[in-house]
Amino acid sequence: MSPTVFILNGPNLNLLGTRQPEVYGHETLADIRRLCEDHAEGLGLSVDFRQTNHEGELVTWVQEARTAAAGLIVNAAAYTHTSVALLDALLAVDRPVVEVHLSNIHKREPFRHHSYVSKAAHGMICGFGSHGYVLALDAVARLIRSQKEKS
Amino acid sequence: MSPTVFILNGPNLNLLGTRQPEVYGHETLADIRRLCEDHAEGLGLSVDFRQTNHEGELVTWVQEARTAAAGLIVNAAAYTHTSVALLDALLAVDRPVVEVHLSNIHKREPFRHHSYVSKAAHGMICGFGSHGYVLALDAVARLIRSQKEKS
Amino acid sequence: MSPTVFILNGPNLNLLGTRQPEVYGHETLADIRRLCEDHAEGLGLSVDFRQTNHEGELVTWVQEARTAAAGLIVNAAAYTHTSVALLDALLAVDRPVVEVHLSNIHKREPFRHHSYVSKAAHGMICGFGSHGYVLALDAVARLIRSQKEKS
Amino acid sequence: MSPTVFILNGPNLNLLGTRQPEVYGHETLADIRRLCEDHAEGLGLSVDFRQTNHEGELVTWVQEARTAAAGLIVNAAAYTHTSVALLDALLAVDRPVVEVHLSNIHKREPFRHHSYVSKAAHGMICGFGSHGYVLALDAVARLIRSQKEKS
Amino acid sequence: MSPTVFILNGPNLNLLGTRQPEVYGHETLADIRRLCEDHAEGLGLSVDFRQTNHEGELVTWVQEARTAAAGLIVNAAAYTHTSVALLDALLAVDRPVVEVHLSNIHKREPFRHHSYVSKAAHGMICGFGSHGYVLALDAVARLIRSQKEKS
Amino acid sequence: MSPTVFILNGPNLNLLGTRQPEVYGHETLADIRRLCEDHAEGLGLSVDFRQTNHEGELVTWVQEARTAAAGLIVNAAAYTHTSVALLDALLAVDRPVVEVHLSNIHKREPFRHHSYVSKAAHGMICGFGSHGYVLALDAVARLIRSQKEKS
Amino acid sequence: MSPTVFILNGPNLNLLGTRQPEVYGHETLADIRRLCEDHAEGLGLSVDFRQTNHEGELVTWVQEARTAAAGLIVNAAAYTHTSVALLDALLAVDRPVVEVHLSNIHKREPFRHHSYVSKAAHGMICGFGSHGYVLALDAVARLIRSQKEKS
Amino acid sequence: MSPTVFILNGPNLNLLGTRQPEVYGHETLADIRRLCEDHAEGLGLSVDFRQTNHEGELVTWVQEARTAAAGLIVNAAAYTHTSVALLDALLAVDRPVVEVHLSNIHKREPFRHHSYVSKAAHGMICGFGSHGYVLALDAVARLIRSQKEKS
Amino acid sequence: MSPTVFILNGPNLNLLGTRQPEVYGHETLADIRRLCEDHAEGLGLSVDFRQTNHEGELVTWVQEARTAAAGLIVNAAAYTHTSVALLDALLAVDRPVVEVHLSNIHKREPFRHHSYVSKAAHGMICGFGSHGYVLALDAVARLIRSQKEKS
Amino acid sequence: MSPTVFILNGPNLNLLGTRQPEVYGHETLADIRRLCEDHAEGLGLSVDFRQTNHEGELVTWVQEARTAAAGLIVNAAAYTHTSVALLDALLAVDRPVVEVHLSNIHKREPFRHHSYVSKAAHGMICGFGSHGYVLALDAVARLIRSQKEKS
Amino acid sequence: MSPTVFILNGPNLNLLGTRQPEVYGHETLADIRRLCEDHAEGLGLSVDFRQTNHEGELVTWVQEARTAAAGLIVNAAAYTHTSVALLDALLAVDRPVVEVHLSNIHKREPFRHHSYVSKAAHGMICGFGSHGYVLALDAVARLIRSQKEKS
Amino acid sequence: MSPTVFILNGPNLNLLGTRQPEVYGHETLADIRRLCEDHAEGLGLSVDFRQTNHEGELVTWVQEARTAAAGLIVNAAAYTHTSVALLDALLAVDRPVVEVHLSNIHKREPFRHHSYVSKAAHGMICGFGSHGYVLALDAVARLIRSQKEKS
Repeated sequence: MSPTVFILNGPNLNLLGTRQPEVYGHETLADIRRLCEDHAEGLGLSVDFRQTNHEGELVTWVQEARTAAAGLIVNAAAYTHTSVALLDALLAVDRPVVEVHLSNIHKREPFRHHSYVSKAAHGMICGFGSHGYVLALDAVARLIRSQKEKS
Repeated sequence: MSPTVFILNGPNLNLLGTRQPEVYGHETLADIRRLCEDHAEGLGLSVDFRQTNHEGELVTWVQEARTAAAGLIVNAAAYTHTSVALLDALLAVDRPVVEVHLSNIHKREPFRHHSYVSKAAHGMICGFGSHGYVLALDAVARLIRSQKEKS
Repeated sequence: MSPTVFILNGPNLNLLGTRQPEVYGHETLADIRRLCEDHAEGLGLSVDFRQTNHEGELVTWVQEARTAAAGLIVNAAAYTHTSVALLDALLAVDRPVVEVHLSNIHKREPFRHHSYVSKAAHGMICGFGSHGYVLALDAVARLIRSQKEKS
Repeated sequence: MSPTVFILNGPNLNLLGTRQPEVYGHETLADIRRLCEDHAEGLGLSVDFRQTNHEGELVTWVQEARTAAAGLIVNAAAYTHTSVALLDALLAVDRPVVEVHLSNIHKREPFRHHSYVSKAAHGMICGFGSHGYVLALDAVARLIRSQKEKS
Repeated sequence: MSPTVFILNGPNLNLLGTRQPEVYGHETLADIRRLCEDHAEGLGLSVDFRQTNHEGELVTWVQEARTAAAGLIVNAAAYTHTSVALLDALLAVDRPVVEVHLSNIHKREPFRHHSYVSKAAHGMICGFGSHGYVLALDAVARLIRSQKEKS
Repeated sequence: MSPTVFILNGPNLNLLGTRQPEVYGHETLADIRRLCEDHAEGLGLSVDFRQTNHEGELVTWVQEARTAAAGLIVNAAAYTHTSVALLDALLAVDRPVVEVHLSNIHKREPFRHHSYVSKAAHGMICGFGSHGYVLALDAVARLIRSQKEKS
Repeated sequence: MSPTVFILNGPNLNLLGTRQPEVYGHETLADIRRLCEDHAEGLGLSVDFRQTNHEGELVTWVQEARTAAAGLIVNAAAYTHTSVALLDALLAVDRPVVEVHLSNIHKREPFRHHSYVSKAAHGMICGFGSHGYVLALDAVARLIRSQKEKS
Repeated sequence: MSPTVFILNGPNLNLLGTRQPEVYGHETLADIRRLCEDHAEGLGLSVDFRQTNHEGELVTWVQEARTAAAGLIVNAAAYTHTSVALLDALLAVDRPVVEVHLSNIHKREPFRHHSYVSKAAHGMICGFGSHGYVLALDAVARLIRSQKEKS
Repeated sequence: MSPTVFILNGPNLNLLGTRQPEVYGHETLADIRRLCEDHAEGLGLSVDFRQTNHEGELVTWVQEARTAAAGLIVNAAAYTHTSVALLDALLAVDRPVVEVHLSNIHKREPFRHHSYVSKAAHGMICGFGSHGYVLALDAVARLIRSQKEKS
Repeated sequence: MSPTVFILNGPNLNLLGTRQPEVYGHETLADIRRLCEDHAEGLGLSVDFRQTNHEGELVTWVQEARTAAAGLIVNAAAYTHTSVALLDALLAVDRPVVEVHLSNIHKREPFRHHSYVSKAAHGMICGFGSHGYVLALDAVARLIRSQKEKS
Repeated sequence: MSPTVFILNGPNLNLLGTRQPEVYGHETLADIRRLCEDHAEGLGLSVDFRQTNHEGELVTWVQEARTAAAGLIVNAAAYTHTSVALLDALLAVDRPVVEVHLSNIHKREPFRHHSYVSKAAHGMICGFGSHGYVLALDAVARLIRSQKEKS
Repeated sequence: MSPTVFILNGPNLNLLGTRQPEVYGHETLADIRRLCEDHAEGLGLSVDFRQTNHEGELVTWVQEARTAAAGLIVNAAAYTHTSVALLDALLAVDRPVVEVHLSNIHKREPFRHHSYVSKAAHGMICGFGSHGYVLALDAVARLIRSQKEKS
């Protein structure tokens, strides 16, 4: 069976495509899920794609990923900037963690420049819209391979 | 049918009336609900009045308000000061949003002076106790009317 | 005779309606005065409505309000953010004080987020344009009534 | 019946013992629960021991403690540093509140030095691992006794 | 003719004695004037005692003191903390300048700890109520004498 | 008739030439006025040159300039650094505004580095003594011409 | 012979019981010494209990504890917040160090929130009055035991 | 002819592979160049790969890219954090700009958390070592395509 | 017997008169002692005048003053700015405390602007050289009298 | 031979006129050079006009100006805000130095508000586009004349 | 007789060689004393080498050095960062003062980066272990010689 | 052949001796070079002494020193405070690095107190003028010897 990558999405990402489509485009989170599933298949990976508005649920999913996932892609949205609980959960994960954001958070309001997720992630990709998930899958796939080779 | 205004209350507001009544008065959140329902009726509005201790639930309710409500009154209590997720949800709402607080938050501890809700609200009313909800209803009613006139 | 409410307006508010009408609307300060006088009449209050560009005059008027007014509505405009003298004058007033602003000051430049007036006001109303004065009259009327009941 | 002490544990504490055992030891949260139950028995107290990853649930439990508990021990983990909602809930509790942390939070990253819980707790115990819970029980027992004597 | 000392008082000091007499005492600014006039007479000085709520007037009086006064006592009240204009006027005075405050400003709110007047004053006296004016007269008398001796 | 440029001078500038002439030179504000009138004549402009110690008066003059002046030169002295009211007045002016200072304010105390006037001025000239007024007249003349050409 | 625990008390703690007894209680430092001696006996420890107003003496005692003590309890009072010298001395101690404070320092003035002692202590106990010393003895006893077991 | 992507490397990147190979690996900048050339070929792009220790040269190359390149990948190394000149050059480029870093700069010293490059880049990729260049090429290729489609 | 006023002088004040006499004058601390003794006699007070370089000794002397002195004058010199221990000792004194400094500390380096002594003193006098001690004696004499009258 | 003024331009100013002409206008740096040469001729000055992207070259040119130039006009662009090296070079120049900027840097991003050049310049002119160079030439010409008169 | 150099060592330096010898080496303070005495002899200087844990004693020794020493070497250890009293004492010394530290304090915790001693020292040497004392002796010897030559 | 020490000098140091000789002395950089060459010879070292105004060239020279030098002395002048690129180059050097400054940088403007070079240097010597280079040579010679002994 192909290894699973958890792709965890934080608050308000369920609104994608319906909110200001002239700005964020017409792509929905369901579209991104399909994009990820297709691309993952080509990489020999399967995807477990989720979204929640609850910080606590995000924490629980990250804990679940400790044994159930081969790697982890996290777009924590607003919790990126405020959740120490999420950071602590990620610090307990012994798998590749890739942080992704649709927009370039460094070009937005100052309170979005800081990321707790970054302190526990191998790398970060931001600013490329939905294509960032594809790049993140490539990155996590490579990290999984190199982790296997080491062990 | 009369348009609905969501009145969303954040953490610990369910304790009103039972906590330090010599300070906060004997009025409970149920009393405020009735006060709002009565006053809304006079304005030709109906009210959907809710309270939660969960940041994620508050986010979800705000998302629901995008289509189900004509306007939104938010007393986010402690999440006012810490929740970027709530801010992001409110930024996606294309309806009048009024922020309300029972006490004058500018006279309290410094960490209560800052409000994420304010960055997405049309206006703010604070310091008038439960009467602030009545004023907020007047304000939101007027904003709904003027929004209708424009469209 | 009906009790009098002082409505004190700070610097540049005399320009309302003539400055960038496409932004601030065509309503002048005289229009707001009439709006207040009409609404106050319904509440059994009379209104003493003034404007000045001088910080010192604002201070003197607040001192006058200590005996001549039953309540006080203050839109200190720019002096909101810089005048400790105004704060000290307000601290000496034993009447209801309501702070009002046409725009939502928390959405503007950072130096407009801080208010010295707030430290001495019962409550604050901002972001509702001229309608904020009406809400402020409702608030101050209620505070006057409840102050009377206590004494 | 013996008075009950609520022992509330915050996010990621459910991972104890399984995460980096060479660092945090092999003791699990279940072990700490047993340790607390045994020690409480000797003090004539019973224990209600809980863990959650949800800030809102922590708030609700603290509210519940207002009537159901004789005292409260809180290890809020990451929410210690970010949750104003938790602080507000604790401020409404008229029972002894003791804050406990496994590690000495003052020796860790700067964002862990600040505690909202401390603003509402009688005292704090940190840096003694699971033994800190035993000390906290001793402290809370003594506070319950002295509170009874006063009333 | 005896040399004149200007004693300049800033905003709201005209309220002394009528505002919260249980806190600030029953002494009015007129009482302090008489106290100063009497004490100055003993020192061979005459006094020009003034009060204004206007920053600009305070500046003008300080300018006047450059030629009309032998020394200057300034209680700038709220303008102490905000007026660079007052500082600039004082910097142009080639006479002894003594700063006085009724209360100990270092024990009050942080925004009252900083003084622009101090940057241009020979010395400061605070916290002794009206007696501070007497001490300030002693200080300014001595400075006038020693300035004369030098020239 | 030649278009009028308002040249508005803030607090303490009336002392020029009499205060520390060895530092600031012997040139008085009247000298600068003549310098400006002469130079303006050569540019086909007339000058309305004023000085005040009152922030409120400065605000009122700027408001007057909205219709009475073709352009505006402002040396707000100390109010440069503290007056939000002045900024607001300038923001309402739809004419060229040039900020001028005798000294290079960036080389003085830190509290003089910040300018509220700059936020509303087309440009700033500082550090050239009275000659800065001449340069400012050249600048404002050119801006008036280019504004006319556009309309 | 039973191992000795140094209990070192910093400046002004000699005033306990005589200063504001209605606030701090009637217990003196001598009472706390007896409390510690009694409790230590039950733990098989002896106590060397000292107080000084001198930072340098506190440093010297900590150095002495390096060889003469099995463990160390430190209530550095005001030096907690200012003494890097004390921190350096503690860093050179290879024995269990427990920090104790009578009051909850996190609820007092901001300059009391920071502790240099914490950077070198195994753990901290604060807010439990004299009972905090008893808890600290329990904690240090356990740390001594576990240190012995390791060696 | 295939469109060219400039890949510009900043100071000290020429040391790659020879500096602490046990940390940074044995891969040299020449290896990364070949990796990029190979990968670009598959994307139908050619690569102009350069390195310099001079801030000014980096600025000049970015200016050159305005006409000579279809897209731009920038690893500015230390100049990322200090060069406003580089930011200004990038702001004048009307082509896709992707920022890349070998390490996750958010996990390093605080002065490396801030990036001037980010203010002018479409997106950023960091933490994936040399593989980050491959991901950046994928990202820039996609941005070039979508830019072409729009025009 | 006449009541005693403690006059406590901090570090380096023993150097007065010998250090840079062209700046600080030729007056020694012994001269100031005599000045105080003479002036105190006229006020019906006796003086206990001391100097130390030790923070701990200053603390001990303040403690002694709690019973042995009718009032306290403190020139803590450098410890003014750094000693929380001194503040705590002063907070335990139930007698008039007057802070004195030879120079105007607000005109010196920023680290000398803050005073821990001020938080516990009735008032402060600074900038008048040795004459400040005379003024402080006048102030303390008056405070002692008024304290007696109240009891 | 007429005295020479160095006009030194920093990074990216070579792009003028080609970058966003709708914003910055169609004027190139060559146009500004001609404008300067023409205006200088009328003032009896010759001009040495240069541009570089290298901080080090700018430093070297300023050093060269120490003997080769009668005065110096500097538009350091981005290096204005970051180059201490440039400041040090300017501090060694004993000739008039005038700082010029095309835009009003005080109205742009906060990191552009600070200028190292200002600490070494006689004056600054900003916000007048290319006309600022003309004003700077007038200013430097006058400063050269007055410097000559003094020597 | 050869001139004497005071070498004053602050708190905890008496522990050298016994504390973590694997880190700080086996050299004791007595070894450093001998090293200094030997090296000083070669320079024609004698050495008075002292250590204390008391800030006040350090101050007193520096005062003594004003007449008894030809130069002064100070390793104030922790008091480097906290003692304004030490700074004041050093400012009164009219002899060469050299600051020395065993470690490079700029590479340690942030609170060790700041030095009050530096504000009064001719120069500083840090990071060279005991050899730094030898370099400091060379430096002070040279400064003594050059001071003699001037007088 | 004797081992070579690189002595690298940053921007504006080429002006030594010609700039304000009454302040900096008449010694030129060439004089310091000779001083270094002579002193190095006595230590059995040869010297490669360079100066540049270019940050990039300084970086390149440091890289060259990785293989060509036995040790490194760096006086980076202004780049000390601003160059992260220089820090990164120094971090890659596995040889003794000594930082030197002519003046005591801690006594100058605040922006000169911070040093990036210090984060990568074994030690720092400042405030001793050209003699500091001699001390630095002694220090680097000793470090080279001790490094050899270890290997």
